Amino acid sequence: MMPLESIFHSQLGFPLLATASDTEAAPMVLAGVLLSLVFIYLASKLGGELSQLVNLPPVLGELVAGVIVGVSALHLLVFPEAGAIASDSVVITILQKIAGLNPESIGEVFASQSEVISVLAELGVIILLFEIGLESDLRELQKVGVRAAIVATVGVVAPFVAGTLGLILIFGMPTIPAVFAGAALTATSIGITSKVLSELGQLKSTEGQIIVGAAVIDDVLGIIVLAVVASLAKTGEVDIANVIYLIISATAFLLGSIFLGQFFNKSFVAIAEKLQTRGNLVIPALIFAFSMAFLAHAIHLEAILGAFAAGLVLDETDKRKELDQQIIPIADILVPIFFVCVGARVDLSVLNPSSADNRQGLVIAAFLIVVAIIGKIITGWAVFGKEKVNRLAIGIGMIPRGEVGLVFAGIGAASGVLDKPLQAAIIIMVILTTFIAPPLLRFAFGSEETAAQEAVKEADLASTNN
Amino acid sequence: MMPLESIFHSQLGFPLLATASDTEAAPMVLAGVLLSLVFIYLASKLGGELSQLVNLPPVLGELVAGVIVGVSALHLLVFPEAGAIASDSVVITILQKIAGLNPESIGEVFASQSEVISVLAELGVIILLFEIGLESDLRELQKVGVRAAIVATVGVVAPFVAGTLGLILIFGMPTIPAVFAGAALTATSIGITSKVLSELGQLKSTEGQIIVGAAVIDDVLGIIVLAVVASLAKTGEVDIANVIYLIISATAFLLGSIFLGQFFNKSFVAIAEKLQTRGNLVIPALIFAFSMAFLAHAIHLEAILGAFAAGLVLDETDKRKELDQQIIPIADILVPIFFVCVGARVDLSVLNPSSADNRQGLVIAAFLIVVAIIGKIITGWAVFGKEKVNRLAIGIGMIPRGEVGLVFAGIGAASGVLDKPLQAAIIIMVILTTFIAPPLLRFAFGSEETAAQEAVKEADLASTNN
Repeated sequence: MMPLESIFHSQLGFPLLATASDTEAAPMVLAGVLLSLVFIYLASKLGGELSQLVNLPPVLGELVAGVIVGVSALHLLVFPEAGAIASDSVVITILQKIAGLNPESIGEVFASQSEVISVLAELGVIILLFEIGLESDLRELQKVGVRAAIVATVGVVAPFVAGTLGLILIFGMPTIPAVFAGAALTATSIGITSKVLSELGQLKSTEGQIIVGAAVIDDVLGIIVLAVVASLAKTGEVDIANVIYLIISATAFLLGSIFLGQFFNKSFVAIAEKLQTRGNLVIPALIFAFSMAFLAHAIHLEAILGAFAAGLVLDETDKRKELDQQIIPIADILVPIFFVCVGARVDLSVLNPSSADNRQGLVIAAFLIVVAIIGKIITGWAVFGKEKVNRLAIGIGMIPRGEVGLVFAGIGAASGVLDKPLQAAIIIMVILTTFIAPPLLRFAFGSEETAAQEAVKEADLASTNN
Repeated sequence: MMPLESIFHSQLGFPLLATASDTEAAPMVLAGVLLSLVFIYLASKLGGELSQLVNLPPVLGELVAGVIVGVSALHLLVFPEAGAIASDSVVITILQKIAGLNPESIGEVFASQSEVISVLAELGVIILLFEIGLESDLRELQKVGVRAAIVATVGVVAPFVAGTLGLILIFGMPTIPAVFAGAALTATSIGITSKVLSELGQLKSTEGQIIVGAAVIDDVLGIIVLAVVASLAKTGEVDIANVIYLIISATAFLLGSIFLGQFFNKSFVAIAEKLQTRGNLVIPALIFAFSMAFLAHAIHLEAILGAFAAGLVLDETDKRKELDQQIIPIADILVPIFFVCVGARVDLSVLNPSSADNRQGLVIAAFLIVVAIIGKIITGWAVFGKEKVNRLAIGIGMIPRGEVGLVFAGIGAASGVLDKPLQAAIIIMVILTTFIAPPLLRFAFGSEETAAQEAVKEADLASTNN
């Protein structure tokens, strides 16, 4: 059997790039994807296992392994968007040695296989959020809803104000880039934190639920902040109507899907039970998750928000355990692609102090890192209520910016608002907050484990007494 | 959290297409993929379930559903390689309504999302062959090895000779297009047949093993035939050295991987048992399967041949059952993409007899179909040995050409060898053989079920008597 590609690309593979080379280029895309996946999986397993051995969360090892195979070191996994060209990629070099492609084909294969890996990584984070939604207990989440909202709001306002003012007052920076850098401090990477929480078995704890809830709300706020600063950067003024639209639609989407989900639940179970063919549970679940992800995207929110809402809804069904079981292998093969790719895209060369740009960036970075960490850690103390919670753990859980911060840096760079040192500073801040959060979180939960256990005992006593 | 795409594409999304539109186009690719997957999954489940209801194999329903959502009817899933442009795609039209992309972005989004879906479909067939390898018993396959080889050889030689001579002698066709059309008759689609066999519970029967073995060998022969006729079409002469290379490398690859696999087995189990993190079994298995698929591709064989060999090797480990269990959900979400896409790519408009080209094509098609069916059915009677086998079922199992035949048609069309009527005839032959094989196969196994059961009883008696 021949790969399907050969026939398809023989006619009109790429709209503007239809050349005779397409016939030879097309099967190469599949080969490139296969080889990239082998490198990604090897890196994720090596990194994850080593991390586990030294008692750190596996996801941290996957990120570091991603950095090692990525643009900073081995070049096994590089992406054209970061400015890399085909000859920078070891995968393409190997394909080239095997097939002797012509230069046009090389560029096309490189772009196509990078696109496929990028989308697989995004499907990975969608499945991750779906799985997190499945594991999150809606009633638990509702219990922490108000507290999560406060944590999220403090975690957006504090670093934004401190960062922006600090850059203007201390570094004498113009307002617009300072606002942009401040905005980059507001994000929280739900992917990394929730993976670590899950690995620590803390996803369902009160702290875990507050962090996840706050990170989701932070996502919503982050979308709004980005829309605001992007329009500020573009036009010099803020589009109030758009800001209001984003706030209302995001809130309505989450609450609406949870509300409608109560009715949808029973139909879902009924459908899954009627289906006779293979995939009777997992395919309807993915149809729902992908539809919700698409819907969220269609109303200008984020796909992952939809996947998370879908998981929350299906969590309430009788089929939950069975579905959990079937989603695990799917998540196992897709989620590592996301984390390794996040690592692979980080360019550590901005840390090299021999360049003057980098030195200036390092000083600003140091400031941003301090604001980023303190601005989020204080959120733990915004939690009210009688229940004893691990405030430090909540604050630390909000620290990692992950890929979200990189998006701010990228859009800022593309719009010309951020100069090189400020870009470098934001990237360094993102790297550091992403990498320190997992071990700190483990430490925060570990060190207060006794206290938490005591709190549980107290709570048990209290409920027994009632 | 923002999609990663936005940052990456803001710089240099496509090598030759870097425009300001990239920033808005990039998250649209993910949206397009999500929507396409929703359509694919809906089609596969509806088709599969309806097919099951009327007692036909689900995979046939998936194919038909693919035709309905594809280029022939609903246009929910169309591919640029068949000549479709962005505005033909309902997915792109929906994206367009949501986001109002500019014309350049549309073409780019259409090409990228089609590329991603194509690669997902190919990963689907790779996982399918890996799963079939896992389910195939190597010792059983070795038992049927010689018989499978004979079936495959007869199934390649008979339709090729009859088809080529018939086209020359009856239709007065020139030699080279006749040879090409004859070559298109030789293929066997292992994907469709083995899925049906698996659904009928016949994959591990002697007949099932002969069919799968013969289909694998047919793949190898098909690669060689394609290489030969392609070089014939290009240069007018056959490259003997290449033919010999292909025969030796394909045989060496399969036998070599099975031989080395005996030693690799134990290391694989040892590694999987040592790993502590999630995906400890499925990720090493996929690393192995994808590496083998890449290796097969690298030595100019087919990726699916490598995946099948990998499955055969891992089938012999103690972890087989656990691995089977974990591969199922992965196959459930990837394999339907393959079958729906095969259906979606079939253009039924070539069946419309109102065009003169189509009428001429239909006559040739009728001839090709007869040769295609008879040429494969006789292979059942090439099976020797004392054991009583269902010869009709074996012959029918070899009938479907599936996507393999479409590849021949595509390459022939691209090289200019095949004119429109002959192209149409080959496509009709492929469609019909693909669609009739599953119900016929079910009939053949059903009608001779009693005979087969008697044969089993006889065999039991014989073994008891010994």
